[in-house]
Amino acid sequence: MAAQRIVLASRPEGEAELENFRLETFEPPAPGDGEVLIEVSHLSLDPYMRGRMNAVKSYAPYVELDAVMTGQGVGHVVASRAEGFAEGDLVTGMTGWQSHAVLPGAEVRKLDDSLPPSAALGVLGMPGFTGWVGLNTFGRPKPGETLVVAAATGPVGSMVGQLAKRAGLRTVAIAGGAEKCRIAQETFGFDAAIDHRAFDTVKDLRAAIAAAAPDGIDIYVENVGGDVLRAVLPLLNDHARVPVIGTIAWYSGADLSGPDTLPNLWRQVLVKRLSINGLIIFDHWGDYPAFLEEVGPLVASGEIASLEDVAEGLENAPEAFLRMLKGGNMGKQVVKL
Amino acid sequence: MAAQRIVLASRPEGEAELENFRLETFEPPAPGDGEVLIEVSHLSLDPYMRGRMNAVKSYAPYVELDAVMTGQGVGHVVASRAEGFAEGDLVTGMTGWQSHAVLPGAEVRKLDDSLPPSAALGVLGMPGFTGWVGLNTFGRPKPGETLVVAAATGPVGSMVGQLAKRAGLRTVAIAGGAEKCRIAQETFGFDAAIDHRAFDTVKDLRAAIAAAAPDGIDIYVENVGGDVLRAVLPLLNDHARVPVIGTIAWYSGADLSGPDTLPNLWRQVLVKRLSINGLIIFDHWGDYPAFLEEVGPLVASGEIASLEDVAEGLENAPEAFLRMLKGGNMGKQVVKL
Repeated sequence: MAAQRIVLASRPEGEAELENFRLETFEPPAPGDGEVLIEVSHLSLDPYMRGRMNAVKSYAPYVELDAVMTGQGVGHVVASRAEGFAEGDLVTGMTGWQSHAVLPGAEVRKLDDSLPPSAALGVLGMPGFTGWVGLNTFGRPKPGETLVVAAATGPVGSMVGQLAKRAGLRTVAIAGGAEKCRIAQETFGFDAAIDHRAFDTVKDLRAAIAAAAPDGIDIYVENVGGDVLRAVLPLLNDHARVPVIGTIAWYSGADLSGPDTLPNLWRQVLVKRLSINGLIIFDHWGDYPAFLEEVGPLVASGEIASLEDVAEGLENAPEAFLRMLKGGNMGKQVVKL
Repeated sequence: MAAQRIVLASRPEGEAELENFRLETFEPPAPGDGEVLIEVSHLSLDPYMRGRMNAVKSYAPYVELDAVMTGQGVGHVVASRAEGFAEGDLVTGMTGWQSHAVLPGAEVRKLDDSLPPSAALGVLGMPGFTGWVGLNTFGRPKPGETLVVAAATGPVGSMVGQLAKRAGLRTVAIAGGAEKCRIAQETFGFDAAIDHRAFDTVKDLRAAIAAAAPDGIDIYVENVGGDVLRAVLPLLNDHARVPVIGTIAWYSGADLSGPDTLPNLWRQVLVKRLSINGLIIFDHWGDYPAFLEEVGPLVASGEIASLEDVAEGLENAPEAFLRMLKGGNMGKQVVKL
């Protein structure tokens, strides 16, 4: 059986590049006692993976040099020595960027095969679940409020926007480019969409957001950082909530030249009684069944839409990943093997 | 009746100065229907007043030029046309910096005269209540955790420290000078006390805090900002809580020269799942009876200690206020008229 994997060849300095990855072939091991061998059909590419490429202490171990890139995959069981799993089962788990993975049965989850396999990676997977937790647990939405989210056509942003809209909020999308703005409104039902690439300065971007959020911002779900954050901060209302889910704009390094904007943020936190909460989805898996129960039927019925950007072939995963980091994807980035 | 008041003569540029204040005499008005006339015996001086001197939009109106400085006072009713108040009643209200004030009965509260009058301004007043809300509502203390608070001999910090100690936490005080550190430990029971003036760099201050908090910091009650914040941030544990109550170090302007430390803060918020919440006590008055019920008896019995720095005479209020802003007070700053 010919198997392929992509390993971390070197650590990026600043922006990640193709040369940081290496495609290898290998002989997949047979599953041990309690394990399954999965043939991966779909691999998820997510912004958090950029963080794992750096040898920096974080909430999860970083990827060692020459080790397989970490990531979630979907596929079929091709050999099982784990109770409850049989050949042919559609499953998901942290397979990594490879065509075949051996995982303990306890770390693998069977999928409902009435939905597209890749749904488990996006709208009903980690990104969708992250959006649901971020909005509900830390955003605490109330009807009539205004929500802003960036990367609004991505799998987190689009989930946040659709759930907030269903909860009776005014929803404002920020996205890169006119096409994404169109999709944000037409596919995901945002009330307004702002192309952050259309503005040269934070001030101009802020004016556009202010116009789209005439009553101010009550919830800013943070998944980008950078200029969007700087534009949004002064527009937050008293008692606004800011769930911090990601800071993709800063994953390859931030512009740290002055002025120091922390004192002003701190003043805003105090004066406006802001509530800022970091969210790492691993802390919340206990709520995943409740998420599936609520959102699964809405996805099946089409009431919650999703959008995927599918790259073909494991060998193209690095290029698709780098493109995604620059916002070049249109919807949840998946690799079909 | 000769009455005195202190008005805002000019707005400070940077640090406040004596010339920003002016002492005036005036004839106090008679109380109208529903009002009381109070002869003020004790005036509270608090850091938030510095913010009110600037013509900057905030959570409360700023003081107009030539208007009486805002503030809470305690005194006796000398004339009443308000139901429920009689001459001689000991009361508290937002009298401002003046010897006589007319207030609506609805904005005045009768005091239990078995406690010292000034308790209503400190340990059982706004500062003590702020500490109680900050610790319990946003700090969410758990036995065995570690808490750090600055201005630890002040009325907020000392309340926070004593309540946290009673809740089974390790408590670390930060204070300015050896004498305050001694009081923090001996009077307020902190497990450790660090003199921030003894260190030339944030790095050295951080090392001292780290040594005093060997298991990291779970709750940092923020009432100063500045270098203490910078020292504490990297020491916060996963899931740490940061109630933001004040930022006195920055009230007269902050050093905004680079680098920009906001991106790093944002990364810490995400990676450590921090919970940062601004607190303005006006939002929480509904909980004040519960606070009095819990903490009042502890103050009466001496189980919760308090410390006051009493300036004599309204004419000395500006000097006492400016000294307090620089940390020159020893405990809750009060003016006895």
